[in-house]
Amino acid sequence: MSRFTLYGYWRSSCSWRVRIALHLKGIDFENLSVHLVKDGGQQHKADYLALNPMGQVPCLVDHQAGLSLTQSAIILDYLEEQVPEPALYPGDAGHNRRIREFCTLINTGIQPLQNLAVLQQIEGRFGADAPAKAAWAAHFIARGFTAAETMLKDVGGDFCFGDRVTMADLFLIPQIFGAHRFGVDMTAFPTLARIDAHCGDLDAFVKAAPGAQPDAQS
Amino acid sequence: MSRFTLYGYWRSSCSWRVRIALHLKGIDFENLSVHLVKDGGQQHKADYLALNPMGQVPCLVDHQAGLSLTQSAIILDYLEEQVPEPALYPGDAGHNRRIREFCTLINTGIQPLQNLAVLQQIEGRFGADAPAKAAWAAHFIARGFTAAETMLKDVGGDFCFGDRVTMADLFLIPQIFGAHRFGVDMTAFPTLARIDAHCGDLDAFVKAAPGAQPDAQS
Repeated sequence: MSRFTLYGYWRSSCSWRVRIALHLKGIDFENLSVHLVKDGGQQHKADYLALNPMGQVPCLVDHQAGLSLTQSAIILDYLEEQVPEPALYPGDAGHNRRIREFCTLINTGIQPLQNLAVLQQIEGRFGADAPAKAAWAAHFIARGFTAAETMLKDVGGDFCFGDRVTMADLFLIPQIFGAHRFGVDMTAFPTLARIDAHCGDLDAFVKAAPGAQPDAQS
Repeated sequence: MSRFTLYGYWRSSCSWRVRIALHLKGIDFENLSVHLVKDGGQQHKADYLALNPMGQVPCLVDHQAGLSLTQSAIILDYLEEQVPEPALYPGDAGHNRRIREFCTLINTGIQPLQNLAVLQQIEGRFGADAPAKAAWAAHFIARGFTAAETMLKDVGGDFCFGDRVTMADLFLIPQIFGAHRFGVDMTAFPTLARIDAHCGDLDAFVKAAPGAQPDAQS
């Protein structure tokens, strides 16, 4: 039995972040699907709410520690503590703080505004159709990416912060997938697009991608 | 001259969190208003965007370190490092992780969904009027508070995590102000309401409150 179980969903960017970390660190894990659409949303069922009262993915269970954690940012910090190599905060305090600032921009300023629960609300309350939902999501992604591009243009190399993968890349790449899905023009964000291409060459990112998950398209 | 300048807005819950920390830690600071409504939103002006390309408050400048930081969660961690007492993560690693998980729930699962920029979008795109905007905000606050109440009911004392103030209280109290503003029935959340009452007795929370700021109601 694996030490870790990840409850996630193939297209959830927050689940994807955690999958990348698990693969980068070579951590064996059980990959369980909480299907956000089927059955009216499996995340709303009592057995899952007992793990995460917010009814969101991901949730990580560490069977060895008897611990269940929610919030991808918290899960990622825990994995970094438990399996430090390769380090995803590889710099000094000031450098790592900039990485965290960038991750937080995506985690609070982009992702929450374009996820399934919000798109369901604009449809249910205001009758937004598919193009209106995509335009909403694209607006918030482009707003955040405009800031992200500015933040990275002087520090980005092959990856967000220089020439090695950091936690910032784990937040950025799944969000770029969302950008493509909702029709954001990525030519406006050349630094981000360049980093996306480099991450796409890495095995951990490929294995963690939505299409490679057992619940993809199901 | 103060070592720190805080760029904030009286009714911004993220600015308020940082003000509480500054007052709790007894840190002298210059309190500058970035008015989110006047002049079409001062956060969109070039001079402020140079400080925060995302065009959000707060932003903290540490003149001594020559450092400018965005994202309230990052600013709060920085203040905790620079002025450790009173500690806002006062427990062991496991306890502090639960505090961070709670803060992240509010920071990603509630606050981003009911702030001014989002309410402006549902008005602009879908014609939402004041009651529809309040109902939207109340929905997301109540959803998050349902999870928050579950998370705290066994660990909450006078404050979120036991009987001393932690970072969790700095995230919760400003969000409860928003709950009242948008008509959320707080009797459904007795643990949260009890903590709110206790925090309301503390000088740091009173000094940091929206109505006590120089730009209040302006």
